[in-house]
Amino acid sequence: MSKINLKSKFELFQDLWSPKVIAELNDYQFKLVRVKGDFVWHKHDETDEAFLVLDGVLNIEFEDKTIELKEGELYIVPKGVLHRPFAHQETKILILEPRNIINTGDVSNELTAENDQWI
Amino acid sequence: MSKINLKSKFELFQDLWSPKVIAELNDYQFKLVRVKGDFVWHKHDETDEAFLVLDGVLNIEFEDKTIELKEGELYIVPKGVLHRPFAHQETKILILEPRNIINTGDVSNELTAENDQWI
Repeated sequence: MSKINLKSKFELFQDLWSPKVIAELNDYQFKLVRVKGDFVWHKHDETDEAFLVLDGVLNIEFEDKTIELKEGELYIVPKGVLHRPFAHQETKILILEPRNIINTGDVSNELTAENDQWI
Repeated sequence: MSKINLKSKFELFQDLWSPKVIAELNDYQFKLVRVKGDFVWHKHDETDEAFLVLDGVLNIEFEDKTIELKEGELYIVPKGVLHRPFAHQETKILILEPRNIINTGDVSNELTAENDQWI
């Protein structure tokens, strides 16, 4: 494989809330996502989900709190926990989770993205 | 859990080549490492290993090439592949791999670090 430059990869797409796979580690995938506005409440019963903010500010609302993640901040959403990501300005994030995880988890709506969009 | 600020976590340790665990995702661990100088040739027969450079320049030598990773660059070393990390200047990296992986892989020497050093 070649090395992967995260900033260069972000230049290859502009769509929001649509994860792009950049690498696999065993059966896990590294995904880049541009986010802005409100995502949907959902959960992933089968896995934890890691969010690392690369540029901007990502908020994640839970039933009992909302966290704010800035550049260089990492958060692990535990499996089965309802959450709703949102961002006031366009924000670039790195997600790590197993293969075959749907971005909207237990919900299917217009924000549900196709899996395995490699860039 | 609380959010994890990578820069703040790096301020908590100074030792080189000694991975510090900052988070777990299922049975995987996010580890921060300060590196400088030469590491040992080794491999991990049981897993791929992800390297993301946060500050500085990390080189990884393979039997047939050497790659140079700068800030914001990611590389996945496939399982079973011999490699030797080195850095001319002190460099900060994020590693992702399963729990219970020894930093020196199939080798045991003075660079072998204790596992599960949480910070």
